[in-house]
Amino acid sequence: MIEKVPPFIIQDISPIVDGGKYPIKREVGDLLTVTASVFRDGHDVIRVLLKHREKYGNGNWQETVMECINAGLDLWRGTFALVKNTRYEYTVEAYSDFYRSWLKEAKLKFDAGQNIDSELIEGDRYLNSVIPLITHKEESIYCTDLLNLISIVESLPDKLKLYADSVLIELIHKYAPRDYGTTYEPYLEVIVERVKARFAAWYEIFARSQGTQPGKSATFYDCIKRLPEIKGMGFDVLYLTPIHPIGYTKRKGPNNSLVSATEDPGSPYAIGNDTGGHTAIEPGLGTIDDFIVFEKACKEHGLEVALDFAINCSPDHPYVKEHPEWFFVRPDGTIKYAENPPKKYEDIYPLNFYAAAGNWMALWQEMKNVLTFWIEKGVRIFRVDNPHTKPVPFWQWLITELQKDYPDVIFLSEAFTRPPVVKTLAKIGFTQSYTYFTWRNFKAEIIEYLTELTQTNVNEYLRGNFFANTPDILPTFLQQGGRPAFKIRFILASTLSSVYGIYSGYELCENTAVPGKEEYLNSEKYEYKVWDWNRSGNIKDYITKINKIRKENKALHYYKNLRFYYAENDNILFYGKATAEGDSIILVAVNLDPFTAHSSKLIIPIRELGISEDETYQLNNLITGEKLLKKGSEHYATLNPEIEPAYIYRIERWLHKEKGFDYFGM
Amino acid sequence: MIEKVPPFIIQDISPIVDGGKYPIKREVGDLLTVTASVFRDGHDVIRVLLKHREKYGNGNWQETVMECINAGLDLWRGTFALVKNTRYEYTVEAYSDFYRSWLKEAKLKFDAGQNIDSELIEGDRYLNSVIPLITHKEESIYCTDLLNLISIVESLPDKLKLYADSVLIELIHKYAPRDYGTTYEPYLEVIVERVKARFAAWYEIFARSQGTQPGKSATFYDCIKRLPEIKGMGFDVLYLTPIHPIGYTKRKGPNNSLVSATEDPGSPYAIGNDTGGHTAIEPGLGTIDDFIVFEKACKEHGLEVALDFAINCSPDHPYVKEHPEWFFVRPDGTIKYAENPPKKYEDIYPLNFYAAAGNWMALWQEMKNVLTFWIEKGVRIFRVDNPHTKPVPFWQWLITELQKDYPDVIFLSEAFTRPPVVKTLAKIGFTQSYTYFTWRNFKAEIIEYLTELTQTNVNEYLRGNFFANTPDILPTFLQQGGRPAFKIRFILASTLSSVYGIYSGYELCENTAVPGKEEYLNSEKYEYKVWDWNRSGNIKDYITKINKIRKENKALHYYKNLRFYYAENDNILFYGKATAEGDSIILVAVNLDPFTAHSSKLIIPIRELGISEDETYQLNNLITGEKLLKKGSEHYATLNPEIEPAYIYRIERWLHKEKGFDYFGM
Repeated sequence: MIEKVPPFIIQDISPIVDGGKYPIKREVGDLLTVTASVFRDGHDVIRVLLKHREKYGNGNWQETVMECINAGLDLWRGTFALVKNTRYEYTVEAYSDFYRSWLKEAKLKFDAGQNIDSELIEGDRYLNSVIPLITHKEESIYCTDLLNLISIVESLPDKLKLYADSVLIELIHKYAPRDYGTTYEPYLEVIVERVKARFAAWYEIFARSQGTQPGKSATFYDCIKRLPEIKGMGFDVLYLTPIHPIGYTKRKGPNNSLVSATEDPGSPYAIGNDTGGHTAIEPGLGTIDDFIVFEKACKEHGLEVALDFAINCSPDHPYVKEHPEWFFVRPDGTIKYAENPPKKYEDIYPLNFYAAAGNWMALWQEMKNVLTFWIEKGVRIFRVDNPHTKPVPFWQWLITELQKDYPDVIFLSEAFTRPPVVKTLAKIGFTQSYTYFTWRNFKAEIIEYLTELTQTNVNEYLRGNFFANTPDILPTFLQQGGRPAFKIRFILASTLSSVYGIYSGYELCENTAVPGKEEYLNSEKYEYKVWDWNRSGNIKDYITKINKIRKENKALHYYKNLRFYYAENDNILFYGKATAEGDSIILVAVNLDPFTAHSSKLIIPIRELGISEDETYQLNNLITGEKLLKKGSEHYATLNPEIEPAYIYRIERWLHKEKGFDYFGM
Repeated sequence: MIEKVPPFIIQDISPIVDGGKYPIKREVGDLLTVTASVFRDGHDVIRVLLKHREKYGNGNWQETVMECINAGLDLWRGTFALVKNTRYEYTVEAYSDFYRSWLKEAKLKFDAGQNIDSELIEGDRYLNSVIPLITHKEESIYCTDLLNLISIVESLPDKLKLYADSVLIELIHKYAPRDYGTTYEPYLEVIVERVKARFAAWYEIFARSQGTQPGKSATFYDCIKRLPEIKGMGFDVLYLTPIHPIGYTKRKGPNNSLVSATEDPGSPYAIGNDTGGHTAIEPGLGTIDDFIVFEKACKEHGLEVALDFAINCSPDHPYVKEHPEWFFVRPDGTIKYAENPPKKYEDIYPLNFYAAAGNWMALWQEMKNVLTFWIEKGVRIFRVDNPHTKPVPFWQWLITELQKDYPDVIFLSEAFTRPPVVKTLAKIGFTQSYTYFTWRNFKAEIIEYLTELTQTNVNEYLRGNFFANTPDILPTFLQQGGRPAFKIRFILASTLSSVYGIYSGYELCENTAVPGKEEYLNSEKYEYKVWDWNRSGNIKDYITKINKIRKENKALHYYKNLRFYYAENDNILFYGKATAEGDSIILVAVNLDPFTAHSSKLIIPIRELGISEDETYQLNNLITGEKLLKKGSEHYATLNPEIEPAYIYRIERWLHKEKGFDYFGM
């Protein structure tokens, strides 16, 4: 038998991910608008509240009144501000507003000429039951006085006006018990992250290849010398591939060869040797203290360090001796190296996250300890290597646990795998995700994929960090298209998404590949390298200019506001972003063909932007500096990949309108 | 700390309603095909099972192997048969198939020329752990012998072939423990109802007006005389408006007037007087024994009785004296009548489903007792009056409780209210629902609404029972359009939905309305009536013909298989239904304009139906009897509402193809 009858049906809450199984994501400063379908039987006036509280707070709810925005669909809407970098719980509570129901009924009957003596008795009886519950003295006196006045007044219309006193109604809402109420459960959750989770430009380096001496590891001090240049290009996050000691056993040689010479440094992803594991620094780079100096220097340059979290152990990792129970063992007692048969990865041992209960609990805890070690050194961004080869529940546990104490930690998931896996890792807590952007080159596929990422429910939980290249991926488009291709892919990465990255060398248009593959020839993964960062043909100025445009135009700080617009020519992609307030509007036209100039008619969505057909507005081409006064929606552009493969236009209004940008609401 | 690591992610299960919060609905004999996205980390061969069991059964699961239908989306599919009228639970279980993973790895390594000694040891070790678990003697011997054979055979390829023995693999699946498995929870539910829940033609009557003596109640024996005619028209369900004693206090007179004369029978919805309440029979109709005779007669005619469950109490209902605590009380101690201020319904008292805990529990139980009373008399269909004015949890409890013991009971929800409420009542268990069909007259609105009902997720839980009229609704279309309109709305109701109904008088094209309203003038609700069931202008022959076509053509027995097709003329609606097997294909063209003849080009969806451009097929017009041999998709029809406002075509294939009708899958 049901104990209590919950009279309200509360359903179709939005935003929501998988019916509330996973949290939604937002950033500090956002407003969260929630809608829900809410109803009960009968004709009561109902009151619907949007409630939220910090998940790890004092347990007290904050309430916002929801308003009915569509009575036919019983649709209610409310909003609250996400002021803190933390997890919030939110839910909807509905209850019958006894007093306003009573008041409405009494008025309707009175207006219809019916006797309301019985109603007045009921109303007074209710008020007399509520007033004693008012704990605030002045409020209590106010109500008592009002009730006395009501009893004295003889005219029924005047009585009803006094009953409808708005202060009285507010006090009843504040103090009256909420009988016949229903609260939606389980509570929903929103992870509110710092703005950098959404808006940042990443630059990836192998620290050991930032120096000037061939065949020798660069140190953190060499890296510090590089900072002005990296910051100068406009980057915010400096992401280092693993900086830990590298194993000796089966160390890989150049181009991933099985044989290495003594001087070969090995892959930094084969972590651990006798000098330490995941909490140690590769001696060639320096010491922990050197790292801290480096990190401080980064901060002074306005750069934040991101570390690589790659859970691979070389056979020489201290764990192998200390915790053989964390590994997979062969019948002969030896430890299994990583493999995807028939492929073998002899320089690394995978960890067994499903080991016997006590063992995996200790292993998981150790992984948390590793990250806590770096967090305590000041690191707040981790790029996670191949998370899809470890259990999803492990990541869910790890991220939730760490963000409890350190809500500002950002986790980037490097899961280049099937869509359900990519999405699930985002759902369970990864702040950002690598995407298939790298392999979306042409108009239809870019529009389809980006629409899915930014305009469907996926945008509630997955923030795509668009890398134009990585040490593992030198896309065919860059191999084939040369310098124009590098500019095209850069502008796409940096304006389609609010958060993007490049792997160093990109600015030099480095594109020598292993023939027939998407891999770099003589990759830094297996060698020390020395680069001429000013070599001819570089696009450093271009990168600097685009990053400056990104910073200066607020529309480009957002992720979900991407909209695609009409360009007649299929080689030209035309899209835009605007702020919810409409005070920043950016349009981008990109020639996707790195070989040939193309011209196209573009349709500027003036109606959507609240611009009327006969309004004059200004179109500033932020790439060329050209300015244009325009009327109407048609525009023509010619984009020559050798000169300017893309234009970024800023629309400047000559008259300011208060409204009209609802469409761009986040 | 997590106790056990569930390695699998199982999500996006389909079909599902609100993430599994509510059951889906099917009918006995259906196959239920379930898809799910299933994956885990790593490279294991995985095994995915669709499991189901009777909800009130012995707890044992039945298992069906799911197959991977899209590896890139990790999408798996399985099917099981719904053989019984009951509730089933279903879920998906996934686990790592250790043996097949091992076998795959060993083979890959062997094929790549790698040493597999260690793998062979692992395999044998595993088999030796599983064989002791085989409880069936012959199966055990088979495996032991095979293992002996494997140990003797020297050739590695031969060994590997023996390891891959399909019987061995099946036995491992049967007996091996499923380590590293995950089962989706909470379990999902499907309500499997009898076919009549989906396919039936309803005929609604006021029993008291089935006689021949003016101003006097007909009896159940008069009703029995009507059965041959009703069955003759092809109806399956005979639905009676309330047959219980009617209150005296404030009894309504003709046309809902507040004053009634002694001879006025009152509204049968004002239930209860000194002769009894919801389990009694209005004396004018007869006795309980008479009802049982009537019910038996119905059964003999192939008609099933549906009763009206209207939870209204007249002030004279026995409950009022016996259980005043079930009602709402005014300050002066009197009981409140029903009202929707300023409207009053003085002849009925509403029940308080939220009364004090002990009271509402007793009230709910009494409502269950009332239905159980009639169920035990053989009634298995209830049309529920205004369910939206009672708490949703009450209905959920009542239907679930009753269907536990009587899964064949059908509940039709009469909730003419807002869409979220209509849908929620269907979700929580109502078998069928009244819809807005009555108010959808024109092409675009019919297509939009019917597409929502039959082609979206709504079809998982809501079966629309399309009533062309009701005692409360004489639609404007019928008032204005006369006889052609009655034919048009009849054909729409009976072919758009597999379950539909008319309220008696429809066959006589009775359409005299209260001016300016959608109500019948001199409604049977407040008067005894005598009808001439053969009066001129009736459409009984038409109804008989259409019901015969419905019975004879299996495509029309289904609900979700409705598809709309192209008709050039906006006055003509063109649609079709086909069975999943493609052995029954029906197309319907209806002129929606009751005043004017219209002609149109129709596009017969031959490709969708698996008919090639150059294939000759036969088009039988089941209305006119005309037969036509055709090729290609274009067809022309002229529909004169005065003669034939609609054609029903049956497509007959001249060559039979095995496949091609997947599109019509349920």
